[in-house]
Amino acid sequence: MKIVIINSGSSSIKYQLIDMPSQEVICSGMIDRIGLETSNLTYKTNKDSLEERIPIANHKTGLEKIAQLLLDQSIGVIKSTQEIEAVGHRVVHGGASFSNTVMINDAIKEKIKQLFELAPLHNPANLEGIMVAEEVFASAKQVAVFDTAFHQTMPEVAYRYAIPNYLLTENKIRAYGFHGTSHKYVSEKAIGFLEKSNKIISIHLGNGCSITAIKDGKSMDHSMGFGPMNGLIMGTRSGDIDQSVIFYMVNTLGYQLSEVNTVLQKQSGMLGLTGHSDLRDIQANAESGDVNCQLALDMNVYRIKKYIGAYAAVLNGIDAIIFTAGIGENSAYIREKVCQEMEFLGLKLDLDKNNIRSNTIREINTVNSKTKILVIPTNEELEIATQVYDLIN
Amino acid sequence: MKIVIINSGSSSIKYQLIDMPSQEVICSGMIDRIGLETSNLTYKTNKDSLEERIPIANHKTGLEKIAQLLLDQSIGVIKSTQEIEAVGHRVVHGGASFSNTVMINDAIKEKIKQLFELAPLHNPANLEGIMVAEEVFASAKQVAVFDTAFHQTMPEVAYRYAIPNYLLTENKIRAYGFHGTSHKYVSEKAIGFLEKSNKIISIHLGNGCSITAIKDGKSMDHSMGFGPMNGLIMGTRSGDIDQSVIFYMVNTLGYQLSEVNTVLQKQSGMLGLTGHSDLRDIQANAESGDVNCQLALDMNVYRIKKYIGAYAAVLNGIDAIIFTAGIGENSAYIREKVCQEMEFLGLKLDLDKNNIRSNTIREINTVNSKTKILVIPTNEELEIATQVYDLIN
Repeated sequence: MKIVIINSGSSSIKYQLIDMPSQEVICSGMIDRIGLETSNLTYKTNKDSLEERIPIANHKTGLEKIAQLLLDQSIGVIKSTQEIEAVGHRVVHGGASFSNTVMINDAIKEKIKQLFELAPLHNPANLEGIMVAEEVFASAKQVAVFDTAFHQTMPEVAYRYAIPNYLLTENKIRAYGFHGTSHKYVSEKAIGFLEKSNKIISIHLGNGCSITAIKDGKSMDHSMGFGPMNGLIMGTRSGDIDQSVIFYMVNTLGYQLSEVNTVLQKQSGMLGLTGHSDLRDIQANAESGDVNCQLALDMNVYRIKKYIGAYAAVLNGIDAIIFTAGIGENSAYIREKVCQEMEFLGLKLDLDKNNIRSNTIREINTVNSKTKILVIPTNEELEIATQVYDLIN
Repeated sequence: MKIVIINSGSSSIKYQLIDMPSQEVICSGMIDRIGLETSNLTYKTNKDSLEERIPIANHKTGLEKIAQLLLDQSIGVIKSTQEIEAVGHRVVHGGASFSNTVMINDAIKEKIKQLFELAPLHNPANLEGIMVAEEVFASAKQVAVFDTAFHQTMPEVAYRYAIPNYLLTENKIRAYGFHGTSHKYVSEKAIGFLEKSNKIISIHLGNGCSITAIKDGKSMDHSMGFGPMNGLIMGTRSGDIDQSVIFYMVNTLGYQLSEVNTVLQKQSGMLGLTGHSDLRDIQANAESGDVNCQLALDMNVYRIKKYIGAYAAVLNGIDAIIFTAGIGENSAYIREKVCQEMEFLGLKLDLDKNNIRSNTIREINTVNSKTKILVIPTNEELEIATQVYDLIN
């Protein structure tokens, strides 16, 4: 079964064509800068690889262009769009409505629309992608996979805030959690890999960063809340911060509230502390003695350690922690620092194993470590394809 | 040496006259509703006790009234204000300037004034109390004890936020921490009481609630940050909340920012969840089956447990936890729930010992509990008197 996976952002489309159940990635690529004068388009198969700079006015033109490439006589991989049995759409916010992957119909689209307010940057682009895909891949089943769905198992004590009840009942203010597709994927891998895996902490460190407490395969707590800006320190996002800072910046320092939002979302995190948002630059500078970069790395690690401790309390101990996503999979430095002075949780890192690079799941603790430490490459597209495939069958 | 302790709020003065080093409380009392038509005044000695409802226009009149009572021929305890050797003032915010108790002079008053912006509700009242005490107890030494001072040992990783550096260097935005006098007092008591006390977590549960990680007697991390509203769930304060909720309430729901502040400070916490802010009412209702009250208690406990876990990670394990202040000292229920399913930290509560009421320091863990669980009555006034006495000698 050929499944197209679509991840639409406000000005981008990431896509893959995956064959299921073989899990073979037939082609993949992305378009960004949609609507600007020159967009970037990439397309990659086993044999061919293409990069173009052309104007792509909107998502419809973008998806049509992708369909054209899939059908292309020389570098294409299908003969007709009818070969595509399903399109799996990543939808960022499912609110409290969706705890599962669903077949898209008008009622579902209406619900995704109702959630625009909760995810103004993401859900409109996701719905746009769905509407266009319904035209371009007209014979395919359209399926929505929600980034929040995995966290719908969180208990009330974890997802509620200590605010007046009407803000929950009328205004839906609660913690939803994000990166669910990734946390689900890697925690299921861990459960398949480990003998004992009732209590897992999954640490997703990429462009966005988040951490999940998982019990018997279910999300119990998560570092991102109502929106995707709190919790761990990220490239440009502050993560957790005392809310009184916001009132102070507006009331005393004279910021506009929108400026504070911009500062906390786009000028904070590792960028705000160091001037750099790419962790590789920051690590290199720290090694050359840049004290701001050293401190930012220490703060980043410190925040992760505190969440590990907090979630160990949620789970009353842990069997394993998982590092995943760009930084989690590639930064031996961050992994080493996170596991330092954590003997109280039975974490013992094997420094040699930690330094091995590989694209497969691996255990990097010492043989006598009470708690397992895993590196698991995440694969959100494959997780989406799997969920779509399972839903259809 | 007779020392008057003054704790001035915006419309109240709490006071004690303590003899040092004997620690004898010669008299104590408070005035509230200052500036309103009827103020309440209390005054209590070993022998006498007085309660009056009279108009008290301002802090000056209030302190003069207190001095009159101290000097009163029938119920007074001193013959002349000259017997008062020192006045110890609780000052809420010492910013990054004060890590110690100091003798007050013009430069100190100027610094307390500079910190008005960081504590607009508290520091002006504290300075007012100092100015009036300088007149009323003119021959006494005036000493300032800062609520933030104990936390000045926090390392950068704990007190910095992941925001642009200029917000720290120019605007002093960082975590300061509060309830320092209480956390210092009970942790020093614990250190005197325990054999092993390098790693302590002190849990102050009163009107305000906060929790401190303490290593070798020094504050290493603390749940309140830039202001006193985040961290644990309190009577009317939300404690930690995803900052994106604030932007959503203003931008999407149409709240004024000042309304959001009021909601989070005065209508949230236990009050927002249950309609009650007094824990005794909430416990009683929960026992009668009120699900909102049950949930609020569970959320309260859950938040404390997560902080214990986080601080165990900060300290790489713990030797003891301390419960203190109104709720911490009196709610066996909260203590029991906090210690449940925390075996991974070696916490084993002795249920019988937990139910004993007493006004002295007590150990409530089982004999084989790896980690000690203590209840320690806090005494901020005595701590202030001790610091004043030590400074003068």
